[in-house]
Amino acid sequence: MKPIIAVNYKAYYPYSFGENALRIARDAKRVWEETGVEVILAPPFTEIYRVLKEVEGSGVKVFAQHADPVEPGAVTGYIPVEGLKEAGVHGVILNHSEHRLKIADINALIIKARRLGLKTLACADVPETGAAIALLKPDMIAVEPPELIGTGVSVSKAKPEVITNSVSMIRSVNKEALILTGAGITTGEDVYQAVKLGTIGVLVASGIVKAKDPYSVMKDMALNALKAVS
Amino acid sequence: MKPIIAVNYKAYYPYSFGENALRIARDAKRVWEETGVEVILAPPFTEIYRVLKEVEGSGVKVFAQHADPVEPGAVTGYIPVEGLKEAGVHGVILNHSEHRLKIADINALIIKARRLGLKTLACADVPETGAAIALLKPDMIAVEPPELIGTGVSVSKAKPEVITNSVSMIRSVNKEALILTGAGITTGEDVYQAVKLGTIGVLVASGIVKAKDPYSVMKDMALNALKAVS
Amino acid sequence: MKPIIAVNYKAYYPYSFGENALRIARDAKRVWEETGVEVILAPPFTEIYRVLKEVEGSGVKVFAQHADPVEPGAVTGYIPVEGLKEAGVHGVILNHSEHRLKIADINALIIKARRLGLKTLACADVPETGAAIALLKPDMIAVEPPELIGTGVSVSKAKPEVITNSVSMIRSVNKEALILTGAGITTGEDVYQAVKLGTIGVLVASGIVKAKDPYSVMKDMALNALKAVS
Amino acid sequence: MKPIIAVNYKAYYPYSFGENALRIARDAKRVWEETGVEVILAPPFTEIYRVLKEVEGSGVKVFAQHADPVEPGAVTGYIPVEGLKEAGVHGVILNHSEHRLKIADINALIIKARRLGLKTLACADVPETGAAIALLKPDMIAVEPPELIGTGVSVSKAKPEVITNSVSMIRSVNKEALILTGAGITTGEDVYQAVKLGTIGVLVASGIVKAKDPYSVMKDMALNALKAVS
Repeated sequence: MKPIIAVNYKAYYPYSFGENALRIARDAKRVWEETGVEVILAPPFTEIYRVLKEVEGSGVKVFAQHADPVEPGAVTGYIPVEGLKEAGVHGVILNHSEHRLKIADINALIIKARRLGLKTLACADVPETGAAIALLKPDMIAVEPPELIGTGVSVSKAKPEVITNSVSMIRSVNKEALILTGAGITTGEDVYQAVKLGTIGVLVASGIVKAKDPYSVMKDMALNALKAVS
Repeated sequence: MKPIIAVNYKAYYPYSFGENALRIARDAKRVWEETGVEVILAPPFTEIYRVLKEVEGSGVKVFAQHADPVEPGAVTGYIPVEGLKEAGVHGVILNHSEHRLKIADINALIIKARRLGLKTLACADVPETGAAIALLKPDMIAVEPPELIGTGVSVSKAKPEVITNSVSMIRSVNKEALILTGAGITTGEDVYQAVKLGTIGVLVASGIVKAKDPYSVMKDMALNALKAVS
Repeated sequence: MKPIIAVNYKAYYPYSFGENALRIARDAKRVWEETGVEVILAPPFTEIYRVLKEVEGSGVKVFAQHADPVEPGAVTGYIPVEGLKEAGVHGVILNHSEHRLKIADINALIIKARRLGLKTLACADVPETGAAIALLKPDMIAVEPPELIGTGVSVSKAKPEVITNSVSMIRSVNKEALILTGAGITTGEDVYQAVKLGTIGVLVASGIVKAKDPYSVMKDMALNALKAVS
Repeated sequence: MKPIIAVNYKAYYPYSFGENALRIARDAKRVWEETGVEVILAPPFTEIYRVLKEVEGSGVKVFAQHADPVEPGAVTGYIPVEGLKEAGVHGVILNHSEHRLKIADINALIIKARRLGLKTLACADVPETGAAIALLKPDMIAVEPPELIGTGVSVSKAKPEVITNSVSMIRSVNKEALILTGAGITTGEDVYQAVKLGTIGVLVASGIVKAKDPYSVMKDMALNALKAVS
C-alpha cells in the first residue's frame, strides 16, 4: 500500500497563497516523481485552480480544505460540493478541527462527494469520534488531538496511544478507510513512527507549508514513510 | 457619476461555475466596453482566478462574495482578506443576506480591506441597518429586503420606499458611500427605476447569472442605468 | 423494561411557557402515577425550575433541551452542563435536529454529563448517524428524520424502515443505549408501532405540547406503549 | 438621572448559579434599598425565575443575558423573546461580546423587545459599532473593548478615550439611549471615572459575581456612581 502525505495549506500568510502555494505544488510534484508516495495538497479555495494547473499530469492530488453543507443555488460565499467538483479537485477534507461540521452534515457530504466521484478525508479529535465518523464511510480518516495541532510536538511521540487506539477503534467498525496520523507532525521521524504505529500516512500543515524548504521536508517524510511500510 | 452593475454569481449550478462563469465574465467585459458602465463580478471563491484572467485589461472589477472574519494563520477552509488580496480581487461583498456577519466583524473587515486597498460592498436588510452599516464607512452599500431576493419581484417596483428610505437614512450619516439597489432586479426597467429613486446602480444575481443570454440582460441594464443618470 | 414517553416542549407560544408549561407537567405526573411509564419533560431553559418544582416527588424526569458546548466561566447567554446540573435536571437532550452539535462536542458533552450524573438523550437524522452517535455511548438515542418532524406524519407509519434500520445499526455497535422513535408522533397508535418495531419509546413535541388535552394524549401513548411491550 | 449598575452573571461556576445567584440578588436588593441606584441583574436563563422571585417587590430589574433570533415554534434549546417576556424579565442584553449577533438580528430583536415591553441593553466592541447600534435605538448601549473584558483592568483607566469617543459618537446619532461603560470594571473608583466621563453607569461581571462580598462591591460602586452624578 502506498503511503500518503497530505498537506493542509491552511491560510498562512504569505505561505499558503500565490507564488508560495505554487512552489509547494512544484515541490510536491517532484517528491511524487522521486518517491511514488501519494501526495495530497489542500490549498485555500482561491488557490485551487492554479495549484491544479501546476500539478497537472502528475499523480499529486488536490483536495479542498472544506466543503460547505449547502446545496447549489442562492448561496453567497459558500461553495457546494458540486462547485468543488467543477473546479477539478480530487477530494475534500471534512470536519477539520478548525472547521468542524455537524454530524448530519458530515454524513450528507460524504454521500454527496462519493456520488460526484470525490474522495473524502474526514478529521476527528479523539479515537472515539474517529470511530463514529468511520461508520459514515469516508475514504480517509485522520485523528488529530486539537491540543497538539500546530505545536510541533507530534502526536506520534507525545500521544502514540491516540494513534494505536484510533486504529483499533476505527478498524472495529470500518475495515477499509485509510487512516492518517495528524497533529504536530514536522519531521520524517514523526512520519516513520506514525506509519509504524499502524497508519498509512500523515496530515501535515505548518511543518511543510511554513518550512524554509518544503521540498526537503516532504522528501524526508516520504522516504521515512516508505521505510516504515517496507 | 458612472452607474454600477454588480453581479453576485452566488452558487447556481452549473451557471456560476467553470465555463459558465467565464462566459458571464466575457459578457461583462463586452458590456463595459460598449457602455462604460462599471461592472462588478462576484464569482465563487474557486472561480476568482479564472474570472480575473478573463477580464484582465478591461475595467470590469472582480469582488469576492464574502470575507471570513479570520486572521491569516492556522485556519482551514476559511480565507482571510489577505488571501483575497493575494488572489487579485478588487473588492469584497460583506454581510450578504445569505452570509450575514456580526457587526464587530463587519467593522473590522471594512477597516482591514481599506488598509489592503480593497473596496467593500456591504449589504443590509432594511434602511435602518443600512444606515447603521453606513456609519462604518464601506465604499458601497446595498439594501436588499430578504423577502424579495431571488423572487424576480424587484424592490424598485414592490417596495420603492425601501430605496428612498435607504438613501435618506444612509445619507443622513454618510455622504460618500455609493448606494446600490438589490433584491429581485431582473430587467432594465428595474434598473432604471432604481437609479431614478436615488441609487447609483444595482446588485443582481439570478437575473443575470441564470439568464439565457446574460449579455443582453447586462447590456439592457447598463443602457437603462445610463438613461436614468443622464 | 419500562417504556419511555419523552416530551420536547420546544418553544411553542404560549404552549411551552408559563402556566401552560406547568399544566403539561401536572399532566405528566398524573400519567406517570396512573401508568408507571417513564415520562421525560424537556421544557425551555427558563421553565426548568418551575417544571421541576411541579413534578417534585414523582418519577417524572426533567431534561434540558440542549447543552451548550462551553466550560463554566466568562460566557454570556450560554449554559454549561454544570449550570444545568445545578438547576436540578435529570438529563439533557443533545444534537436535536433544531440544534445540531459538532461531533467532537457531542462526545465531550456526553462524557461531561456522565461525570456529573446526568442522562443524555442524543438525536440523529438517519440510522447511520444514529449508529455513529451510539459509539459515543449516550444513555438514549432518538433517530428522527428531519423531513417528518412536526408534520404529524409519524415515522412509524411513513418510514418504519428508519426505525428498524436504526435499531439494527445502533445495536451492532451499542447493546445498551435505549432507542427512541421520533418525528411526527401524535397518536397512541404511532407509539404502539414504534415500540413494536423495536424501540423503547418515543420523543414527541407538538403532538403533546400543542394538544387540546395533553393529558389524554400522553395517557393514550403510555397505555399503547405498555400494550406493545407486554 | 439615576445611575445604573448592571450585573452580568455570565456562567461562572458556582458563583452564577443556585444559592450563589440568589445571594447576589439579595445583595442587589439591599443596595437598591440603601442607595436608590438602578440595579440590573442578568442571571443565566435557568436562574431567571428564582432571581426574579428573590427581588420581587424591589426596584431591582432582571434581564436575560441574550435573546435568540428565533420566532416561537419548533425550535429546541433556543428561547424567543416571547419566552423571556413570559418568564417575567424586564429586559435583555443583546450582542454581548461573548454572544455576538448579526446586525439584522439585533435590529429585529430590538423592535420585538420594544413591542413586548422589554428593555434592551446592546453591547458593542468599539465606539464606531456602538454608534451603528445606537441608530437601531436600543434603550441602553455598553461599549466594551473585548481585550479588557474580564481582565480587572478597567476601561475607565486603561482607555478613557473609548468612553469619551463612545459618548460623542453615539450622541451624534442618538440623543436618548442610556450609555454604560463596561470591561474590566471592578472598583467604585472605576465606576466614578466611568460616570465622570459621561456615561450613566456600568456593566460589570466578575468584579461583582466572583467577589468575596458582592454586597460591598455593589454598594461601593453605587455610592461612587451617586457621587459622580451629584
